[in-house]
Amino acid sequence: MAIIQMNTTSNSKNMTTTAGKVITCKAAVAWGPGQPLAIEEIQVDIPQKMEVRIKILFTSICHTDLGAWQGKNEAQRVYPRIFGHEASGVVESVGEGVEDMKAGDHVVPIFNGECGDCVFCKSKTSNLCKKFRVDPFKSVMANDGRTRFWTKQGEPIYHFLNTSTFSEYTVIDSACVVKVDHDAPLKTMTLLSCGVSTGLGAAWNTADVQPGSSVAVFGLGAVGLAVVEGARSRGASRIIGVDINSEKLSRGEAMGVTDVINPLELNKPVHEEIRGISEGGVDFSFECAGNLDVLREAFLSSHEGWGLTVLLGIHQTPKTLPLHPMELFDGRRIIGSVFGDFKGKSQLPEFAKQCMHGTVKLNDFITHELPFSEINQAFQLLMDGKSLRCILHL
Amino acid sequence: MAIIQMNTTSNSKNMTTTAGKVITCKAAVAWGPGQPLAIEEIQVDIPQKMEVRIKILFTSICHTDLGAWQGKNEAQRVYPRIFGHEASGVVESVGEGVEDMKAGDHVVPIFNGECGDCVFCKSKTSNLCKKFRVDPFKSVMANDGRTRFWTKQGEPIYHFLNTSTFSEYTVIDSACVVKVDHDAPLKTMTLLSCGVSTGLGAAWNTADVQPGSSVAVFGLGAVGLAVVEGARSRGASRIIGVDINSEKLSRGEAMGVTDVINPLELNKPVHEEIRGISEGGVDFSFECAGNLDVLREAFLSSHEGWGLTVLLGIHQTPKTLPLHPMELFDGRRIIGSVFGDFKGKSQLPEFAKQCMHGTVKLNDFITHELPFSEINQAFQLLMDGKSLRCILHL
Ligand SMILES: NC(=O)c1ccc[n+]([C@@H]2O[C@H](COP(=O)([O-])OP(=O)(O)OC[C@H]3O[C@@H](n4cnc5c(N)ncnc54)[C@H](O)[C@@H]3O)[C@@H](O)[C@H]2O)c1
Ligand SMILES: NC(=O)c1ccc[n+]([C@@H]2O[C@H](COP(=O)([O-])OP(=O)(O)OC[C@H]3O[C@@H](n4cnc5c(N)ncnc54)[C@H](O)[C@@H]3O)[C@@H](O)[C@H]2O)c1
Ligand SMILES: [Zn+2]
Ligand SMILES: [Zn+2]
Ligand SMILES: [Zn+2]
Ligand SMILES: [Zn+2]
Repeated sequence: MAIIQMNTTSNSKNMTTTAGKVITCKAAVAWGPGQPLAIEEIQVDIPQKMEVRIKILFTSICHTDLGAWQGKNEAQRVYPRIFGHEASGVVESVGEGVEDMKAGDHVVPIFNGECGDCVFCKSKTSNLCKKFRVDPFKSVMANDGRTRFWTKQGEPIYHFLNTSTFSEYTVIDSACVVKVDHDAPLKTMTLLSCGVSTGLGAAWNTADVQPGSSVAVFGLGAVGLAVVEGARSRGASRIIGVDINSEKLSRGEAMGVTDVINPLELNKPVHEEIRGISEGGVDFSFECAGNLDVLREAFLSSHEGWGLTVLLGIHQTPKTLPLHPMELFDGRRIIGSVFGDFKGKSQLPEFAKQCMHGTVKLNDFITHELPFSEINQAFQLLMDGKSLRCILHL
Repeated sequence: MAIIQMNTTSNSKNMTTTAGKVITCKAAVAWGPGQPLAIEEIQVDIPQKMEVRIKILFTSICHTDLGAWQGKNEAQRVYPRIFGHEASGVVESVGEGVEDMKAGDHVVPIFNGECGDCVFCKSKTSNLCKKFRVDPFKSVMANDGRTRFWTKQGEPIYHFLNTSTFSEYTVIDSACVVKVDHDAPLKTMTLLSCGVSTGLGAAWNTADVQPGSSVAVFGLGAVGLAVVEGARSRGASRIIGVDINSEKLSRGEAMGVTDVINPLELNKPVHEEIRGISEGGVDFSFECAGNLDVLREAFLSSHEGWGLTVLLGIHQTPKTLPLHPMELFDGRRIIGSVFGDFKGKSQLPEFAKQCMHGTVKLNDFITHELPFSEINQAFQLLMDGKSLRCILHL
């Protein structure tokens, strides 16, 4: 009896007045490809088994949101839908069986989950959880194949990338939610949800950049600049930044890029220039632009015999890899990296600590801040190449 | 004076009567794509600086000779030419500066040389020597850009793959000649020149197959079966063999293949069958057929998250890789392997010892033996899928 009493007390301490009830709140709903997001009232269901309902405090926009919003890939279109996958917030309530989080915890959603139990989660070499890995086609919850969002008229609103953070409240599988320290600055933690972790992790985990390595980064958005920060913090001796936007090149130089290349101002292929200034090619090249021509240049910029190209950009084109099979005999390698090969739930808390202790510098990634209501303006900033990350306040 | 005397003695001991003179001998000369090779008298020049002239005792035919002879790649055609790159023999004489070999030494030519001095030879991770790596376009000696073979009329006859072994005598850069023990059985050593080393090395060096690994080998010629032998000797638990020639499948079973698949007798894609029998896919797949459709099946047969496809086949097609960039995000990797990533001069002598001591079983690879004069018959056997390696006796 005493034990039950204690549990009740402890539960009620974390109980919120909204727990167990449908929440009505505001969200930015996408109604069609490229249409401005509509801030409107929606209903958010209670979290089911192993799900978590989160009050989102900050969210930001990644290029993957941009691509999905533009709807370039027709097969992935489904409306109405709530985009967004970079965010931070506080647990409002948890569903049955969730033991690693409780109401009030500070959390960061991750689009590439970790169930901890499948063959991938148990392997050391993969972060592609069988059940909760990133899936651009998924638009409903795994538990029951239904949505946790509805319009006020009771129509379902679809989910996006396991997260759907452009909403005051969202429901996410607990495998896709990472608990961070209570004293971690939540605004900055938003960056860890996707872009910054992806770039940093690509340099640290996927490529395993070493002191003295040479690196070329193609596309200096948040992902590319996070690669730069990852390479810098590992002691890379040469970090070549490539972008067609000269403002990004200046930003890159401020953040550790040692040589900048604007392909539009070059009268030869980028790979020739890079091979020229890096003794035959870099050890590692990173494609962070989502463009196949850029991918080929990145591949050819790496050194024969050991060069590794890490693919990060999302390629919406139906075209296949622009590489000839015989080119693989030159000893260049190519590999894709999802979420920088971080296992989100097991590795992100430690990574968050490293960020708080200054091993990694996150401040420069937040270039803009706006109220949630101006989300369409934030999309425009990213599209225009003006922002790295614009933090939206909810 | 005494020293000079000694040198003279030591030189004269290794001196052959032919040293320093042009040799007239028989060779199998290719005069055009797909034309039967003509056994005719040719002249073989004296070896220049860092070159070795070798009396070939045994030679065999690899699929790469077949492809070059058929001349499928027009840009690589040049005639008259002497093909052949799998062989063994005895050093007849050496050119200026060659110190690691002398007349009488038993040697094996390698098409992918090792100068020992360049950035690749000095790196641990690459066997693509800057100067002597395999180059299908090269047809003359590096020293002077000329040939060491002429017709009796004094016309140049071109070289092939650094070796040109379809000749009683050939001249090869010392970087492309490996000395083996005097008691190594030369006939079997012929296999180490290319196919068997390539397949074995792909399993050992490139893939680093571990005890318990699962493996799928596509194309069970000498290269594919050497992969099988490499996987078997490493303790792979499952070795799936794929070939459209059922005789090759039977051979494979005798050599360690645990499951055979004939795509012509299957009513679904090979990768589906393989995923079904290997818990979602194999750890390693090897493409040893030189066919892009096969390459795609091999890629899709490997396990998501960590599967590695090793490309060994030579692809004469102008088509690029049949893989979509987004498919790399499934965590499957692909890599090319030249000569099984063996560094020929430094690693082959040890490998030869392992073969002599039975770690690797070479006997089954020699399916036929013929006199050199019947070389066209040996080509036919390979083309018809009847032989693995037919050893030609010179
Ligand atoms: N693999 C993953 O897990 C993962 C995670 C997040 C984002 N992404 C993808 O990574 C890419 C980058 O995301 P982001 O948020 O940094 O985007 P972003 O829009 O902020 O940055 C892209 C950058 O690429 C530059 N660029 C465009 N075309 C170029 C060209 N031809 N040559 C050189 N530079 C060029 C742009 O100027 C811009 O600076 C996107 O494709 C995104 O979808 C992948
Ligand atoms: N990477 C290297 O360093 C290197 C070295 C030697 C040879 N090679 C190449 O490796 C390949 C194999 O050489 P080999 O001497 O063993 O050739 P081979 O002709 O003896 O064997 C090829 C095998 O592939 C099988 N095959 C053909 N089409 C197939 C299909 N659609 N599906 C399944 N199997 C199929 C054939 O039946 C045959 O058994 C060739 O392309 C050769 O040029 C590469
Ligand atoms: Zn993202
Ligand atoms: Zn999992
Ligand atoms: Zn060969
Ligand atoms: Zn070299």
